[in-house]
Amino acid sequence: MEYVSDFKWEKGLTVKKLVDNYRSIGFQSIELKRAADVIVKMKKNNAKIFLTFTSNMVTSGLRGFFAQLIKLRMADIIVTTVGGIEEDIMKATGEKFAIGSFKQDDVELHEQGVNRVGNLLINNESYMKFEDMMMPIFDKLYKKQKRWAVSDLLKEIGLMLKDEDSILYQAAKNNVPIFCPAITDGSFGFHLYLFQQKHKDFVVDVVKDFGNILLSTSHDEKKGVIALGGSISKHHAILATLLNGGANYAVYMTTAHRTSGSMSGATTNEAKSWGKVKDESDVATVIGDVTITFPLAMIGALEELEEDGLL
Amino acid sequence: MEYVSDFKWEKGLTVKKLVDNYRSIGFQSIELKRAADVIVKMKKNNAKIFLTFTSNMVTSGLRGFFAQLIKLRMADIIVTTVGGIEEDIMKATGEKFAIGSFKQDDVELHEQGVNRVGNLLINNESYMKFEDMMMPIFDKLYKKQKRWAVSDLLKEIGLMLKDEDSILYQAAKNNVPIFCPAITDGSFGFHLYLFQQKHKDFVVDVVKDFGNILLSTSHDEKKGVIALGGSISKHHAILATLLNGGANYAVYMTTAHRTSGSMSGATTNEAKSWGKVKDESDVATVIGDVTITFPLAMIGALEELEEDGLL
Amino acid sequence: MEYVSDFKWEKGLTVKKLVDNYRSIGFQSIELKRAADVIVKMKKNNAKIFLTFTSNMVTSGLRGFFAQLIKLRMADIIVTTVGGIEEDIMKATGEKFAIGSFKQDDVELHEQGVNRVGNLLINNESYMKFEDMMMPIFDKLYKKQKRWAVSDLLKEIGLMLKDEDSILYQAAKNNVPIFCPAITDGSFGFHLYLFQQKHKDFVVDVVKDFGNILLSTSHDEKKGVIALGGSISKHHAILATLLNGGANYAVYMTTAHRTSGSMSGATTNEAKSWGKVKDESDVATVIGDVTITFPLAMIGALEELEEDGLL
Amino acid sequence: MEYVSDFKWEKGLTVKKLVDNYRSIGFQSIELKRAADVIVKMKKNNAKIFLTFTSNMVTSGLRGFFAQLIKLRMADIIVTTVGGIEEDIMKATGEKFAIGSFKQDDVELHEQGVNRVGNLLINNESYMKFEDMMMPIFDKLYKKQKRWAVSDLLKEIGLMLKDEDSILYQAAKNNVPIFCPAITDGSFGFHLYLFQQKHKDFVVDVVKDFGNILLSTSHDEKKGVIALGGSISKHHAILATLLNGGANYAVYMTTAHRTSGSMSGATTNEAKSWGKVKDESDVATVIGDVTITFPLAMIGALEELEEDGLL
Repeated sequence: MEYVSDFKWEKGLTVKKLVDNYRSIGFQSIELKRAADVIVKMKKNNAKIFLTFTSNMVTSGLRGFFAQLIKLRMADIIVTTVGGIEEDIMKATGEKFAIGSFKQDDVELHEQGVNRVGNLLINNESYMKFEDMMMPIFDKLYKKQKRWAVSDLLKEIGLMLKDEDSILYQAAKNNVPIFCPAITDGSFGFHLYLFQQKHKDFVVDVVKDFGNILLSTSHDEKKGVIALGGSISKHHAILATLLNGGANYAVYMTTAHRTSGSMSGATTNEAKSWGKVKDESDVATVIGDVTITFPLAMIGALEELEEDGLL
Repeated sequence: MEYVSDFKWEKGLTVKKLVDNYRSIGFQSIELKRAADVIVKMKKNNAKIFLTFTSNMVTSGLRGFFAQLIKLRMADIIVTTVGGIEEDIMKATGEKFAIGSFKQDDVELHEQGVNRVGNLLINNESYMKFEDMMMPIFDKLYKKQKRWAVSDLLKEIGLMLKDEDSILYQAAKNNVPIFCPAITDGSFGFHLYLFQQKHKDFVVDVVKDFGNILLSTSHDEKKGVIALGGSISKHHAILATLLNGGANYAVYMTTAHRTSGSMSGATTNEAKSWGKVKDESDVATVIGDVTITFPLAMIGALEELEEDGLL
Repeated sequence: MEYVSDFKWEKGLTVKKLVDNYRSIGFQSIELKRAADVIVKMKKNNAKIFLTFTSNMVTSGLRGFFAQLIKLRMADIIVTTVGGIEEDIMKATGEKFAIGSFKQDDVELHEQGVNRVGNLLINNESYMKFEDMMMPIFDKLYKKQKRWAVSDLLKEIGLMLKDEDSILYQAAKNNVPIFCPAITDGSFGFHLYLFQQKHKDFVVDVVKDFGNILLSTSHDEKKGVIALGGSISKHHAILATLLNGGANYAVYMTTAHRTSGSMSGATTNEAKSWGKVKDESDVATVIGDVTITFPLAMIGALEELEEDGLL
Repeated sequence: MEYVSDFKWEKGLTVKKLVDNYRSIGFQSIELKRAADVIVKMKKNNAKIFLTFTSNMVTSGLRGFFAQLIKLRMADIIVTTVGGIEEDIMKATGEKFAIGSFKQDDVELHEQGVNRVGNLLINNESYMKFEDMMMPIFDKLYKKQKRWAVSDLLKEIGLMLKDEDSILYQAAKNNVPIFCPAITDGSFGFHLYLFQQKHKDFVVDVVKDFGNILLSTSHDEKKGVIALGGSISKHHAILATLLNGGANYAVYMTTAHRTSGSMSGATTNEAKSWGKVKDESDVATVIGDVTITFPLAMIGALEELEEDGLL
């Protein structure tokens, strides 16, 4: 039996120690510490780790952290939405996103050519530059072959980028596949469409990529899922592990609640009924904004793995 | 200036009258009445209506309502996730989903071969029957042509179903395209993959379907978006209207909040900054579970349109 | 075993029928229908009903509905916060609250002397008129006696009001006590303080009122709690029933979730561990804005009770 | 203009550095860093600080942190609910609260005499011991005087405790008043009632305590509010500062959203319309579980104040 204990600040407190303290504070802090523990366990047991996130997290400064985690071998398979791909490329080519406010005047922003994502701001120009880049890239890829599985295509793009903080770059360099089951759901899709108009035999093969994610782990390997936010990125990772016998470990971090039956709010508990997460799995669900909670849980894990010489 | 007024029950109160009363109750009830008004306006101004929903809503009894709305010409374009496609087909072929509880023992359910989606339950058998059906269908389609845009493929399947309450059936019959930008993110995707293993030239062309959603409305037409929940279904409809000059009307109904910068929680206000919703648009964002709120807002609109002879 | 069934609209649909349909739609709609059923059961089994709400609900048009419910004998004991008392009195004396927007410029509103509660607006003048009224009332009460239990004091005020839609008026007329455990937490408290400065022997006896709520029901009577929102109004009703052996029925309607361990988000399930709700109780927890959900659940119950001649 | 920057982990990262990094990550992390900054500003400008929290936070291990903050002079006035008072006393007299799970079987817990608050557990015995303690304490107090303002009564109790980690003890020792506007809403209230039954002239004077909170700061002093969670504790502090000209600084940390018009979800922006927070105030609203977010924001502030020799 563990007990609540009084938390107290000490000067120079490290993140590691705070996360350790969370264990006995209460409510979501306890779940957060459990998430850190499950991540450590995944790694210690050599599980293949699926890391999933939505595009708004790539809009945020978590993007560099995701790239670092790939480099540190804390993620073996990435699943995300196409907005995340686009914004990683924008940032890799020097675009900067500004910090604004949830309360800004949106009509005014629109007139200034500024797009708002929560309290972050993206200039139209960043999109335009991105779009200018795409056609030459598709040209190059098309010369290589005409039918592309999505993850292969993203790897090629990653190799063209030269940014240590880029998710695509680090993934390509470290042979970590990036899956994006709805590759057309963004500006990227529009440009694929324009390109295909001129090159009718250009095919983006999503069905083949289903095979790729399926074969990225085997039935016998241990598997873990770290799902940040919901959407198809979370669902796709769960599905891929399920078809290989289910995940052994799962950490879900989200702001959504279970009460509406959505994928975003589905808990690790519900996942047990699906056999998605194996009954005996170690699991944690943490409710909260991942820009706050994910660095905490992951740093808690990283520091412990580092101490144990496992990083 | 409108004022709060005291709500009172009268025997036999109709939904229409309750929704009218919502106008002057407060908080989300006011937003719900505004949603009904925006829907009426979409229709009166002959806007092409994009209706988007996530798969858990098809798990629910909203499925029959969506089919009815297509039949009533209240939706011109559907965008959903593949789970919704799968479950519509299951139901069309006689499968029944049971009502359970958010608190059920998930390990026990798993042992019984039952999968939980919130407080709803799906038997493994329903999935197995679905899977048995898919191969012969893909065979038929493959004989027709080898390269399929997703919406064309879904239309063909819809024509094979014989269920008035089926979304796919009503959509096919009424020439309402169904877009599903992540068609492989489910059991459906797995079977497409198995089929492609035997028929390497079988291609599901998501890029071509991007053209289809783009051309489903024109720049000059008025456009409205009714987005239930978040995910790529919401995003895809917004994107498609944006590339055609932006939507004129938008109704978002969701349980997610704007505070984490997610697509699910993005409000119609934020959409203005993206030019996704035109500045002068009529818009409403309603926070709440759509199984409760959507029938209310939509019935409020249907009854009014019916009175005006517009249905 | 109950099954999900396809919902379909029929012209002229009543609220009663919609709520009946909710039973087999899914997620929170199912919980809402259960809430209606539990309310019917409370009444059929002659339970004493505690109805609790927070002040923002009195700001809203639910205020008239609460008054109607008292008149209809659907509430035997009321627990609320002092803001609700103040605003009921303001409305009873002719003040009107305007409908605004969640997005209004709050600095501008402040300059105009307008206070915002979500999307509702209260003029400073309404407060000033309220304050002018209080001193003469306290004078009258003080002449009667010097030490007042809160519920007795509120009853006296209720009898001075002449508004059929007033909660205080209907409660006083129908001998329904109103408990307000934090009577000083508002403008009302400030004026009590000013009055006490001049009359040192004027005492508001909250301890005595604890006895009153305790004795408002007996250990042997059946008891039900309908708690709208959280706060001390919810907690106080639960506490009062607990000390009398626990409630037999409980309906909680709230936007808060269980995940932070707050009273607002505490579910009827958690209440079982407290013995607050008896183990065998009939209970329902509905997540959603009560301005939408409460009229639905309550009308569902009222229509059924009316049909059965129990109203 | 500030820009999003890529976050990266470094070995041994301190909480202070993480919170500094939050400034440029995005969404709620930005708001959390702003909260830390507002707290620093409150202190640097010698504002009187109102710290408010709800009882579940005292159930949690934040209790010791609150006591430490009082000792460090980071809180000048405390406002809380009576459950927080009760549990602080229980802990001060040696009771321990266990860590459980949100998913425990509540009927079973009830049979074992265990009460659940989210994922924390309180034994019935802890309540019984608390109750045994109360009567002798009330006896002592009654001998001193017969009419007690709440905050005076709580100070007396605080002086009887001998626990450095106790909120009541540290508050009493450091002359920090504790206000509890609904003192009867708990087991404490029941025992006050039992005591009053035997001593009819025993009075708990809540009206007088309204004067005490009003006079705890002056119109001319700078004032800051740090409100954790909602409920009357948040409202009472805002009200007390408003009547003295309004707060200059405000930090709200909560899981509730603005969309239902509740006090828990009311933002610092809405507060501007009330003149509760002065227009020019420095304010921050952070959405998230305070067991995670509050230590972060407060430690961020403490470390900075310590560096500047202000602690």
